[in-house]
Amino acid sequence: MATGQAAATATGAEREALDRAIALALRGPRTHNPQVGCVVLGADGTVLAEGHHRGAGTVHAEVDALSQLAPGAARGATAVVTLEPCDHVGRTGPCSEALIAAGVARVVYAVSDPGTASSGGAARLAAAGVDVVRSPDDRAEAVVADWCFAMRHGRPHVTVKWAQSLDGRAAAADGSSRWITGERARAHVHAQRAAHDAIAVGTGTVLADDPALTARTDDPSAPQPLPVVVGARDVPADARVRAHPRGLVQLEGAPDVVLAALWREHGVQTLYVEGGPTLASALLAAGLVDAIHCYVAPTLLGGGRTALGDLGIATIADRLLLDDVALEHLGDDLLLTATIRPAATAAKEG
Amino acid sequence: MATGQAAATATGAEREALDRAIALALRGPRTHNPQVGCVVLGADGTVLAEGHHRGAGTVHAEVDALSQLAPGAARGATAVVTLEPCDHVGRTGPCSEALIAAGVARVVYAVSDPGTASSGGAARLAAAGVDVVRSPDDRAEAVVADWCFAMRHGRPHVTVKWAQSLDGRAAAADGSSRWITGERARAHVHAQRAAHDAIAVGTGTVLADDPALTARTDDPSAPQPLPVVVGARDVPADARVRAHPRGLVQLEGAPDVVLAALWREHGVQTLYVEGGPTLASALLAAGLVDAIHCYVAPTLLGGGRTALGDLGIATIADRLLLDDVALEHLGDDLLLTATIRPAATAAKEG
Repeated sequence: MATGQAAATATGAEREALDRAIALALRGPRTHNPQVGCVVLGADGTVLAEGHHRGAGTVHAEVDALSQLAPGAARGATAVVTLEPCDHVGRTGPCSEALIAAGVARVVYAVSDPGTASSGGAARLAAAGVDVVRSPDDRAEAVVADWCFAMRHGRPHVTVKWAQSLDGRAAAADGSSRWITGERARAHVHAQRAAHDAIAVGTGTVLADDPALTARTDDPSAPQPLPVVVGARDVPADARVRAHPRGLVQLEGAPDVVLAALWREHGVQTLYVEGGPTLASALLAAGLVDAIHCYVAPTLLGGGRTALGDLGIATIADRLLLDDVALEHLGDDLLLTATIRPAATAAKEG
Repeated sequence: MATGQAAATATGAEREALDRAIALALRGPRTHNPQVGCVVLGADGTVLAEGHHRGAGTVHAEVDALSQLAPGAARGATAVVTLEPCDHVGRTGPCSEALIAAGVARVVYAVSDPGTASSGGAARLAAAGVDVVRSPDDRAEAVVADWCFAMRHGRPHVTVKWAQSLDGRAAAADGSSRWITGERARAHVHAQRAAHDAIAVGTGTVLADDPALTARTDDPSAPQPLPVVVGARDVPADARVRAHPRGLVQLEGAPDVVLAALWREHGVQTLYVEGGPTLASALLAAGLVDAIHCYVAPTLLGGGRTALGDLGIATIADRLLLDDVALEHLGDDLLLTATIRPAATAAKEG
């Protein structure tokens, strides 16, 4: 391109820098703040500095990168960042101002701010004469998808998981249920635990099954999910969950209150609910479940120990409808995953 | 082959005659007696006569074919028959003797007698100097498979069908359930009705749903299954099932007694049980179900109206295990078909 005329789309060097910025973003923790990465390129396309966000209260990715440069070194440079630079004064100053103050000439970002208090950074930069280019990227969207969800809903994305016989039972009449599903299904559950920020169970499950709530996967360095027990009953002093490396969080109250607290107080973006029937049913009845993972064992049990209890559904028109149904064979078991259709949409179908 | 030396396997002409005999067999009714077809070939391979069995009390296929020939015309001929000729005096004489008396020189049959009172025909023929060849054929086996099952077990082959939400419910709290599954699933059910000899429901289902128990398929000439109501309660005079073209059969008693009566008194080889929960659960608990067809709607209902009730399973080791699990997508619904593992085998796995 001609000198002095900025490209309206990202250049090859900028796309490469975005790849690097995504990798940097993922080094940061998943908490209240989004994972963001930034690469500063010189006018000739060389990398001048890299940065990423390390969690609430620490500097943002752009400021982290700029802080590594001598005063004036960023003048005329291009900042490539995974998320639109913020424009608000939180615990740190707005990134838009920091970029303008450093004399950055061009900003390339992948994901627009999802309309929070921090939005408006791109407009502020453009108004200050900075070339601003949005370069959409699915991987960059994926990095902040859960954070965006939690920001928008004020609670984590909730997946409820249960194992059942084909006829919907979680246990036989005497309560026995160990290994209703097979080894591959259990391994799959451990991978799912590792893929979520927190695992929740009710106190009933703690008292009945004494779960450790750890993710046992092939990678011992994989992050452990935060263990959450929901309910007012005491967790016994010798409960296995008390030995969890993340430390136990216990909450009580209405489902919406519990979920809001997990996001606001603990920065949980994704929650994996492992039961039992009381907690799973309460969340489903409250319309606070986004996805389900239902492991179906090739067996029939009958009797009263259903995997789900009362969902508050009085008549067939009020049933919860499942979308995006997908099936996977796990040994002899089946895994059915689905999303739950929001109630307003479901009502139209009823 | 050299004159006077019979082929030890079926010749091409005999295989063709067997194809024809299978088609003839299927013209007969499905009742207490097997469907059997017979073709008599001359020494030069031309078809001399054809016959099939037309139901209990009428002549067997071999005798039906021979009866169309002048005395002596079958001398030196070959009888090709789908099922081993019988060797007992029932309401008709043994076919083995009829074939010997007619001077038939060779008998080719596809399916051995399944060890009933009528067996021994092949040995009797061979002892009388007749060339006897068994020519196995899957289609011929399929024609008599259900009859063989019923003969061996003294009851029909039983398939239990139900529709449920993913969580195993058949209805919402108020009992509403109409069209829990979609149009394609319902069409599939009608095809299954047409493919079975009889349909059974409990009196509770008659009183609650007033089903017609007809098979509504694209072929109006397709045979209608026998409608069976199980239970002691009266079927209302204006119940739709009373208008069924086959006439209503009502039975009461223990599940094994009901099934034995359906075979012994009504010649039902295959029974399709459409519910409700009480009848389906009683048959499952009694170990009298061979296969299940479970239609799963992509929905959650919760609550107490489970599709199956108590199956008498006290502890997890006693669960009913499903084999041969197969899945089919029917619009938005799933059909899971499976066989039930016999209890003796299941216990070893527990």
